[in-house]
Amino acid sequence: MLIVQKYGGTSVANLERIRAVAERIINYKKQGHDLVVVVSAMAGETDRLINLAKQIMENPPLRELDLLISTGEQVSSALLSIMLHSFGYPAVALLGYQVPIYTTELYTKAKIKEIKTEKIKDYLSKGYIVIVAGFQGVTETGDITTLGRGGSDTTAVALAAALGADLCEIYTDVEGVFTADPRIVSNAKKLKKISYEEMLEMASSGAKVLEMRSVELAMIYKVPLVVRSSFTDAEGTLIIEEDEEMEKVVVSGITYSRNEARISIYGVPDRPGVAAKIFRPIAEKGIIVDMIIQTSHPDGKADITFTVPRTDYKQALEIIEKVAKELNAERVEGDDKIAKVSIVGAGMRTHYGVATKMFETLAKHGINIMMISTSEIKISCVIDEKYTELAVRALHEAFNLGEELFVKEEKIG
Amino acid sequence: MLIVQKYGGTSVANLERIRAVAERIINYKKQGHDLVVVVSAMAGETDRLINLAKQIMENPPLRELDLLISTGEQVSSALLSIMLHSFGYPAVALLGYQVPIYTTELYTKAKIKEIKTEKIKDYLSKGYIVIVAGFQGVTETGDITTLGRGGSDTTAVALAAALGADLCEIYTDVEGVFTADPRIVSNAKKLKKISYEEMLEMASSGAKVLEMRSVELAMIYKVPLVVRSSFTDAEGTLIIEEDEEMEKVVVSGITYSRNEARISIYGVPDRPGVAAKIFRPIAEKGIIVDMIIQTSHPDGKADITFTVPRTDYKQALEIIEKVAKELNAERVEGDDKIAKVSIVGAGMRTHYGVATKMFETLAKHGINIMMISTSEIKISCVIDEKYTELAVRALHEAFNLGEELFVKEEKIG
Repeated sequence: MLIVQKYGGTSVANLERIRAVAERIINYKKQGHDLVVVVSAMAGETDRLINLAKQIMENPPLRELDLLISTGEQVSSALLSIMLHSFGYPAVALLGYQVPIYTTELYTKAKIKEIKTEKIKDYLSKGYIVIVAGFQGVTETGDITTLGRGGSDTTAVALAAALGADLCEIYTDVEGVFTADPRIVSNAKKLKKISYEEMLEMASSGAKVLEMRSVELAMIYKVPLVVRSSFTDAEGTLIIEEDEEMEKVVVSGITYSRNEARISIYGVPDRPGVAAKIFRPIAEKGIIVDMIIQTSHPDGKADITFTVPRTDYKQALEIIEKVAKELNAERVEGDDKIAKVSIVGAGMRTHYGVATKMFETLAKHGINIMMISTSEIKISCVIDEKYTELAVRALHEAFNLGEELFVKEEKIG
Repeated sequence: MLIVQKYGGTSVANLERIRAVAERIINYKKQGHDLVVVVSAMAGETDRLINLAKQIMENPPLRELDLLISTGEQVSSALLSIMLHSFGYPAVALLGYQVPIYTTELYTKAKIKEIKTEKIKDYLSKGYIVIVAGFQGVTETGDITTLGRGGSDTTAVALAAALGADLCEIYTDVEGVFTADPRIVSNAKKLKKISYEEMLEMASSGAKVLEMRSVELAMIYKVPLVVRSSFTDAEGTLIIEEDEEMEKVVVSGITYSRNEARISIYGVPDRPGVAAKIFRPIAEKGIIVDMIIQTSHPDGKADITFTVPRTDYKQALEIIEKVAKELNAERVEGDDKIAKVSIVGAGMRTHYGVATKMFETLAKHGINIMMISTSEIKISCVIDEKYTELAVRALHEAFNLGEELFVKEEKIG
C-alpha cells in the first residue's frame, strides 16, 4: 500500500519523540508499504517564530513571515530524515518548493493549486521514505507560502489525493474522534468510523481534531483518512464515505465551541436591503458571520441576531453600533459569554424527533437556548457559556453515546 | 553605488542587534545607494542545529544536514527584512534557491558555480533592499547546499562580483584587520588598507577575520572589500589590489595559529617515491598538510617533518606509524603543542633582511624555531606553543608595528 502519514507538532516535539515516529514509520516500511510522511514543526516552534516577527511589528509583511515560519517544518522534516538514516533506512526530506507543491499567492493562508508528484514517485521507486515538510508551498515565482493553521493536515491529504494513496493517517496527540470532548465527558467513546460529512460538521462546530479544509479535501478526492495517536498503538478513527451502517447512527457526537460571540440589533426597519447594510461592513473587515437569526415584528421592525468569532467581537460590535445609528435601530446588544453546543449525526437525515430531544434535554437542565441553527446532519444551539459542560454531558447521556457506540433506534423519541 | 554588505552572526544575534543593522542599512539607503545585504545565522544557531543532528547520529547524511542548517540564515534574513519593513523600507529576503545561487553538489562545503542576478536586479530597480540568506545555495536539481564555515562571506563576495558591485562590506565583531591580535598585543593597530595577497597570507596563517575563500574570490574578481564592525562607526580595513604605498610596507602584520600539530618521521630511506608513500595515505583521508621539511643525511637516510591541522593529528599519527613500519623508518615523533607565528607584508618582495630580523628577534627571546616556511610575502616559524604570545609581541615590537602603521625603511636591517 502507499500510505501518507502526517505527524503533528507534539509528535515531533523533541528528538525522543522523533525517534518514536521513526520507529513507527520503519514498522510500516518493514511490512512492505511505501511511505510519504508529512511533518509539522516541533511543538511551539511556529508560535516562537511568529512571536519574533510580532516583536518587530504587529503586522509583519506576509511574504517575509511565511519565509520565516516555514523553517519550522524544514527543521523537523530534516531531523526525521536524519533519524531514519540513523536506523539505516534511506530517507529524503523535501520542502514545498522541492516537491513542488504549488499554491496561490495568498501568504499565510495559501491554497494548494497543484502538486507535482514525479520527484516523490521517483524517490519511492528507489526505496526511499519520503518526508515532506508540511504547511508550506511555493508560488509559481518561487516564493514560499504557508497554508494557515492545520496546514500540515491539508498537505497530507492533498499529497494522498495527488499520489492516489491508499490511506492517509493523521497522527496527533489524541486517539481519534470521540463522541464528545473526553475532558468534559468522562465516558466519551472513540468512534471507530465516521463519514466525511459528519467530520466536517464536527470540525465546524468545535471538534479540534482536524481542520475543516483537510476533511473537505479528503471528501472531494475520497481519500480514506485515519486519525490516531502517535503515542499509543490504539486504532484511531476512520473517516470515509458514508455507508449503511453510519446511516443508522442518529447522533455520532456532541461538540461545543466557546470561540463565538453574539451581537443583536433590535428594531431595525424591516425592509429589503437592511441585512446587506448590516453585514457588508462586517464582511469587508474579513469577519466571518456564523449563525444569523431574523425576527420580524408586526410594527414593521425586525431584530437581527448573529454570531462572530470571539476574537472579532469588539471590532464587529463597533461596526454594528455605527450601522445601527445609520439605520435608526432601537438598540444594539452584545454578549461574548456564549457557547455553541451541537449534535452531529448522519442518521438525522432519516430520523425525526432528534431536535426535539435536544431541546427537551437542555430545557430539563434549565439551559436557555438563545439561537438555533441546523444543517442536514447537525443541530447547534447557542447557550450561556457557563452551561457548556453541563449541556455537553446531558446531551451525551441523552443520546446514549457513552453506553454504546451505536444508539439503538427505538430509544429515539 | 551598489553596495553588498554582509553581517555576521554576532551582528544579528538578537532583535535589538538586527534593529541596529537595519538602521545602518537605512542610512546607506538614504544616501542613495542600492543595497544587497547578506546575513549569517543568528549567533549560535548553526551550532545548535548541527548539535541536534549529531545527537541523532555522528555522521548525519549531508544533504539532510544542509537542509537543516540552512534554516539559520533563512530565519535571520526574514527577520531583517521584517525589521526594514517596520521602518517603512521595502525589503525582500531571498534564499539561495530563490536568487538562485547555483553550487556544486558537495553538501556542507559546496562551491558556487553561478549566480543568476536577474531577480536581485529586478528588486533593486523597484527600490527594494535585497536581503540574501548567506552560506546557502542550491544544486541544479533543487537541493539545498551550504558553503562551509565562513560561507556567508563567500556569498557576499560572489554576489558583489556577479552584480559588479562597487564595494563589498563585511560587518563583523572586530573593527578591521590589525597588525596583530589585539588580545595579545595591546598596542596593535588597525590597518587602513591591505592588499588581497597580504590578506590571504594573513588568513592562511591564522588571522580569523576573513575566510580565505572569500578573499581569493575578491582578488580574482577585483571586488574592493571592507572589513568593519557592526557595533561602531569606526572605519574598517580596506582590502584592495596592491598599490605603491603598500609596497613600502615591509611587514603589515603578525599572525599566529595554534591549530596545527607536527609529525616527524626519522631515518627513512632517502630515495625517489618515499615522500609520495608518506603523504598519499594522509591525503586520502582528506587531511591537509601545511608545511613540509625534508633533511637528508650522508648515510642515505632522511628525516621528514610536516604539520597537519591539530584536529587531524591523532589520525595522521596513526597513519604515519603504519607507513613508518612499511618503510623501515627509525622512529616517528609527534607534537601537538606547537604554534605557527608568521609575519606578512607585501614589501618583503623588495626588502632584504626581513627573515634575519625575524629569526634574531625570536632567538633574542630564547624561542627555538622548529620549522620555517616562506612565501613571497610571508615568513612562518613553528615554535613551542607556550611562546606564542611572547613571539607575537616581540615581533610586533621588532617591526615597529604598534608605533606607527608604516615601518620606516631605514629601520630594517
